[in-house]
Amino acid sequence: MQETGRRMELVEELRGVLGGRVTVNETMLEQHSSDESYHSPHLPDVVVFPDNAEEVSDIMKLAARFDVPVVPYGYGSSLEGSVIPYQGGITIDFANMNNILEVRESDFLVRVQPGVTRSQLEKELKKYGLFFTVDPGADATLGGMAATNASGTTSVKYGIMRDQVLDMEVILADGSIIHTGSMAAKSSSGYNLNGLFVGSEGTLGCFTELTLKVIGIPEHIMAARAEFATADDAVDAVIAVMQAGIPVARVELVDEEAIKQMNLYSETNYHEVPTLFLELHGNEAGLQHDVQFMEEIVSDMNCRQIEFETDTAGRNKLWEARHHAAYAFIHNHPGRKQMVTDVCVPISELAGAVKDAREAVEASGLSGGIVGHVGDGNYHILLMLDPSDPAEIEKADQVNERIVGYALGCGGTCTGEHGVGTGKQKYQEQEHGESLRVMRKIKRALDPDDILNPGKIIE
Amino acid sequence: MQETGRRMELVEELRGVLGGRVTVNETMLEQHSSDESYHSPHLPDVVVFPDNAEEVSDIMKLAARFDVPVVPYGYGSSLEGSVIPYQGGITIDFANMNNILEVRESDFLVRVQPGVTRSQLEKELKKYGLFFTVDPGADATLGGMAATNASGTTSVKYGIMRDQVLDMEVILADGSIIHTGSMAAKSSSGYNLNGLFVGSEGTLGCFTELTLKVIGIPEHIMAARAEFATADDAVDAVIAVMQAGIPVARVELVDEEAIKQMNLYSETNYHEVPTLFLELHGNEAGLQHDVQFMEEIVSDMNCRQIEFETDTAGRNKLWEARHHAAYAFIHNHPGRKQMVTDVCVPISELAGAVKDAREAVEASGLSGGIVGHVGDGNYHILLMLDPSDPAEIEKADQVNERIVGYALGCGGTCTGEHGVGTGKQKYQEQEHGESLRVMRKIKRALDPDDILNPGKIIE
Repeated sequence: MQETGRRMELVEELRGVLGGRVTVNETMLEQHSSDESYHSPHLPDVVVFPDNAEEVSDIMKLAARFDVPVVPYGYGSSLEGSVIPYQGGITIDFANMNNILEVRESDFLVRVQPGVTRSQLEKELKKYGLFFTVDPGADATLGGMAATNASGTTSVKYGIMRDQVLDMEVILADGSIIHTGSMAAKSSSGYNLNGLFVGSEGTLGCFTELTLKVIGIPEHIMAARAEFATADDAVDAVIAVMQAGIPVARVELVDEEAIKQMNLYSETNYHEVPTLFLELHGNEAGLQHDVQFMEEIVSDMNCRQIEFETDTAGRNKLWEARHHAAYAFIHNHPGRKQMVTDVCVPISELAGAVKDAREAVEASGLSGGIVGHVGDGNYHILLMLDPSDPAEIEKADQVNERIVGYALGCGGTCTGEHGVGTGKQKYQEQEHGESLRVMRKIKRALDPDDILNPGKIIE
Repeated sequence: MQETGRRMELVEELRGVLGGRVTVNETMLEQHSSDESYHSPHLPDVVVFPDNAEEVSDIMKLAARFDVPVVPYGYGSSLEGSVIPYQGGITIDFANMNNILEVRESDFLVRVQPGVTRSQLEKELKKYGLFFTVDPGADATLGGMAATNASGTTSVKYGIMRDQVLDMEVILADGSIIHTGSMAAKSSSGYNLNGLFVGSEGTLGCFTELTLKVIGIPEHIMAARAEFATADDAVDAVIAVMQAGIPVARVELVDEEAIKQMNLYSETNYHEVPTLFLELHGNEAGLQHDVQFMEEIVSDMNCRQIEFETDTAGRNKLWEARHHAAYAFIHNHPGRKQMVTDVCVPISELAGAVKDAREAVEASGLSGGIVGHVGDGNYHILLMLDPSDPAEIEKADQVNERIVGYALGCGGTCTGEHGVGTGKQKYQEQEHGESLRVMRKIKRALDPDDILNPGKIIE
């Protein structure tokens, strides 16, 4: 939006709907100009804070009338530029829509507004002995997690964000309000709109309410760290554990460089070797059996040492360290920004993919570590960059390109859980080929004027 | 297709592509005119048997040129008329495309052609110690199961058909060939076409290949029958078991009438009372713990008797009897056809829903029994009808309408696993409201000339 008069007119109209919850304050615009990625920032024209679905619908109608983009914003923790408003327009910040509306204990579901954060939900559910299974590490909003189809450490057992969404209230480009599902645990009725809108990153509509599956907190939890001489051995051990049918709830690979950064930041003193962080959920007797079986298997796979954490404090420390791995790199590299790769490959291809990625990083001269949800075949290289040095960004882009090329070459995907945003858009054609044409048709059918987060996912 | 000359021309063109695998033989047309439901039959104009995706693409291009409908056909086990070609045209029978293309053991996935049946896959996977988790009872084809988003007795633990599909090769209305996913266990790349095409019942494209998740056969399996005085008690017991976090792999309600039909057909001698059929999967130690805990809980919930089946033979007999329940009714009511209701409700609403359904059946004077995947809130009333008696069909329709009304009134869905076909189309507006408009837009974008299974799901 270039023209100042037209922008002021839009702001006035928005104020008519939202009163004081409309801002063009420079600091606020800046706060909404970037995410946690290395992608360059861009200011929105105006930021609004709706209280309910009707207001979002009115905002959408104004956006259509003024022909300006709408970008939904949760916590700003995207790693691929999903919330950066490269064409300006209205950023809808869902900070005010942060209520947990209903916990339906007997139905194992919860209704929340999109601005509710993961930790906020966790705290509330604990009162009922329930938990929400998707844990991406960052304290993202549930709206944001649905927008990018987030997943994380527990997805190997409990599935990804898309698997948890039973229903969403969505505001479409024309301001109409729809529901994508119901409260039934399963359905074969109509087309699967839940799945289509989850992962659409604000390009098909704005979420104003989510109905999510929750489950009972497991009776017993056991965590472990297993150390290996090489990342290859660690990956082979994971495959063996999964083939044995041991239902791991988390299984994370952390390489020596990432352990080093963790030790610095989290004040742990883990051996700086390729390590698996594991967790098992179940009843006590079953867990003991699984743990023993797992110990045998990883020993056969050249595990040098395995340590178990049975009490809550030890377990929390372990997973806190793991979840802070990305921040540890950032903290230990002041002034630098992070690029996180995010491919997911068939698990049999994982050892080869990680080895090739390691070589690519070394050849680039950049510093970086590996953390990975290896049970899913999804791993991240955390690369630290000087954002003001185009040569470094170029190098990192080349590393990413090689990693993505490897993944697509063996039947994988360019993004396992971070989403497309702007960072993975250039790989969409390569990954989806002819089916990108189908996606474009869907985008055009639902957002003919391209006002919904334009330039993301679909060019 | 009315005009004989035009039809002959189409048949000739099809023969040019498929040679002898094109038929207008009356018996063959009749075989493809109906499914296992009470819905009235309708003949296709021609039936074809392609061998590969390219041939399906050619068929689709001919259908577009001649402007005739295309209906994909697997095993014909639909319960809602999904494969009945009410507007004639070409029925594509996938009987020849029944190869298991690849078992990728380490990746826990399998690639199959759409005509592969569930039992065929099960047999092959057994060699690898693997199993495919979706078991709808009928020996449907995997293409058909994907088309209706089938599920069944094990879905309470392992999820529905949509959860198992990683990728499909799909032929679109214009004959182009796309892939809907990849071999990665998860992805946040592009729009979720897997989920959209699963459950689309041939209205968006024809599936020519499926990549499906498989898992290791559980170490130990334990089955049980728990008898109750009332269906209410049984349902309450299920909720209590699930809230206790016991990971049941199957939990089925069978009412006294259904037990009676089972006993007659399967030569079992189960007490004719409301019964839960249960199954648990895990390691031996864990199972023992779960079984003991479960026994305590169901006793507290007025269970009169619980019997365990630990050996394979006893377990197989139990599940065979359960899976043959629908056939038992058919067998014991010669000359009658079956209408199966299929709503799914939030589990807290299940006891009320079943009670109301029971009353509706009794008021109608029809004979019927209840079987249900109660862990999902999904239950079926098996109603036996004289298909030549319009009054009976009318009565059954009224029962179905009341059951669907109850389900939609409490946040449920009109079909949990059988699909929409023609039977559930009249409820689509009521269930989906505004979002049906979105579904219509998608249908129009992908099949503008409405040649793909016209009249199903979307009117």
